[in-house]
Amino acid sequence: MISNKDIKKYNKSSSYSYTLGAFPTFELLENYPEIVEKIMIHTTAKQEIYDKAEKLCEQNHIQLVVNDKLLEKIREKENCIAAGVFDKFQCQIEKNQNHVVLVNPSDSGNMGTIIRTCAGFGINNLAIIEPAVDIFHPKVVRASMGSLFRINHQYFPSFEEYYHKYGENRSMYPFMLKGAKKLGSFSLNRNQPFSLIFGNEATGLDDSFLGVGQSVLIAHTKAIDSLNLSLAAGIAIYEFTKHYF
Amino acid sequence: MISNKDIKKYNKSSSYSYTLGAFPTFELLENYPEIVEKIMIHTTAKQEIYDKAEKLCEQNHIQLVVNDKLLEKIREKENCIAAGVFDKFQCQIEKNQNHVVLVNPSDSGNMGTIIRTCAGFGINNLAIIEPAVDIFHPKVVRASMGSLFRINHQYFPSFEEYYHKYGENRSMYPFMLKGAKKLGSFSLNRNQPFSLIFGNEATGLDDSFLGVGQSVLIAHTKAIDSLNLSLAAGIAIYEFTKHYF
Repeated sequence: MISNKDIKKYNKSSSYSYTLGAFPTFELLENYPEIVEKIMIHTTAKQEIYDKAEKLCEQNHIQLVVNDKLLEKIREKENCIAAGVFDKFQCQIEKNQNHVVLVNPSDSGNMGTIIRTCAGFGINNLAIIEPAVDIFHPKVVRASMGSLFRINHQYFPSFEEYYHKYGENRSMYPFMLKGAKKLGSFSLNRNQPFSLIFGNEATGLDDSFLGVGQSVLIAHTKAIDSLNLSLAAGIAIYEFTKHYF
Repeated sequence: MISNKDIKKYNKSSSYSYTLGAFPTFELLENYPEIVEKIMIHTTAKQEIYDKAEKLCEQNHIQLVVNDKLLEKIREKENCIAAGVFDKFQCQIEKNQNHVVLVNPSDSGNMGTIIRTCAGFGINNLAIIEPAVDIFHPKVVRASMGSLFRINHQYFPSFEEYYHKYGENRSMYPFMLKGAKKLGSFSLNRNQPFSLIFGNEATGLDDSFLGVGQSVLIAHTKAIDSLNLSLAAGIAIYEFTKHYF
């Protein structure tokens, strides 16, 4: 049980984190109620927000508190009028499903946006290669709009460990500026699941990934040096999943 | 001539704005030197940044100052070690080229990201329907990574005015959750230029756009209620331009 005095600015080493904002808090309550410790509502919240939170908390026997000081201690934006406290969780990605693999992602906003895109296009398994941003950081949770609670994720100390555990019977597509084939110019192997692999925001994937599966380039003009990571991932995920929709 | 005492926090009504950061500042100097009033470099900047700025300023007869206090007055992030002061400019979009049309965009980051995506995929004309975020706000300039200086943009008081001026001999594609056809499921009319139209972040395009050209849906799962605007625009721009690359 987490008491009010334990509610303070997020700390990576802590066993719990926060959903900041009504939308991710409802995503948490609806998708993963068993990890919720407490819900906090601000007195300035609209009645409908309170009513929805109250109903979900009652259904799931979760404590609901109206406590402005508590919420103000952890929120980063003034318009955040609802928050949840949840226990961090561990999960495993699924072997026979499509994956997105982020190698050394360093930006919370990008990771959150990519999680949301994964959920939006039905890729429910995310592998993360360390060093990497903390997926439970409230900024990631908020940028994912709570989609974090809808997908599986798993950290790996190196790409080799991921490859060793999940590489068999799988098509690997590393996305690189030096990619051998252009996205959209080749047909996909539909007989096995795929992994879409993306590098760090500043450095991309190193040349060793040219030897991993089929390297892919998203062609663009010389007016920019590269696409933003979450945009590149979004375009790739769209292209690889559009035949499902 | 803008004096040092005129250098203060950005103001929408002012006739000048700033590039904050080395990357957008070099984009400004390289693409649009004639509008640059002054370049400021921080004493903590690396020698190579200073040397590059000095060379470009000399070539274009632009004043270069090393003045930490001045830069600290306008920068928003501590790691911003270079900035430019530039005169706001007006331009017109081109009639026979492809356009992106943003209807009532309200987020600076999204607008900047979309500008960069436009430049990256060769759509060099952006129409903006008011009310809308200020394209010269330093946050837009920074999110565009300076791509703002590579494309044409034009504000319109209403979509009707845009349509009246540019709608002839043009294929219009409004992107909507109620869109009649799925992106990627139909072939494009290559005989005339196209306009890709996107609505406001929170409200999208209203139903009147169902009667404008061919409405388009980017299909996704029910796990999310909609895609982020800059991501939806990125995916659409990619799909509509990929045959060029």
